[in-house]
Amino acid sequence: MFAPPYNALDPRCPSRFVLTRIGDRWTAMIVSLLGERPYRFGELRRTVEGISQKVLTQTLRSLEKDGLVHREVLSTRPVSVEYSLTDLGRTLVPVVASIVRWAEEHAGQVLEAHSREA
Amino acid sequence: MFAPPYNALDPRCPSRFVLTRIGDRWTAMIVSLLGERPYRFGELRRTVEGISQKVLTQTLRSLEKDGLVHREVLSTRPVSVEYSLTDLGRTLVPVVASIVRWAEEHAGQVLEAHSREA
Repeated sequence: MFAPPYNALDPRCPSRFVLTRIGDRWTAMIVSLLGERPYRFGELRRTVEGISQKVLTQTLRSLEKDGLVHREVLSTRPVSVEYSLTDLGRTLVPVVASIVRWAEEHAGQVLEAHSREA
Repeated sequence: MFAPPYNALDPRCPSRFVLTRIGDRWTAMIVSLLGERPYRFGELRRTVEGISQKVLTQTLRSLEKDGLVHREVLSTRPVSVEYSLTDLGRTLVPVVASIVRWAEEHAGQVLEAHSREA
């Protein structure tokens, strides 16, 4: 058992596993979206373009297991499933939002760097 | 060619590639460290425990290609190589620092969620 304080530079520290999980691009996009409002599965699938049903299912399952996302089966007909953030998940929103924002704001400069290299 | 404004929800947008790159756990740890001061290769290898020489080389090469890290060969004997952040790389420091901090601060709660599931 690894005792706190947690330190991601230590490979035995659980924070390194957590870092891997939250750094995932799908996690960043999904948590950002759920920071706005709850989403149903199909809505997420359409909004995060290019994600496969399988990867979306796996990512949501991981987020649920990590205690970040709450899954609720709604008694609609047909049954639908809604995903929302837990209190813990909400603390992650500003972090992932800043990653997504950085990527969007600086993608042009990264592309420029690539073309200078080529 | 994808025209700005960039939107990571669109799979054709270059910001999605950038998001994948910066979300990588090794990138987060390395950019955080270089935010403090320049590091030599061997120092990084020892400080980011558990990273292999191959993965460290690949990650630094990617960061250099993306315009985030500057590589300088020092005329020491034997020759040594020093890595530092570029201006673009420095804008990423607060973002990755907040990811690492979140992982370290909330790893305990994620572990608790895992044990509730089991």
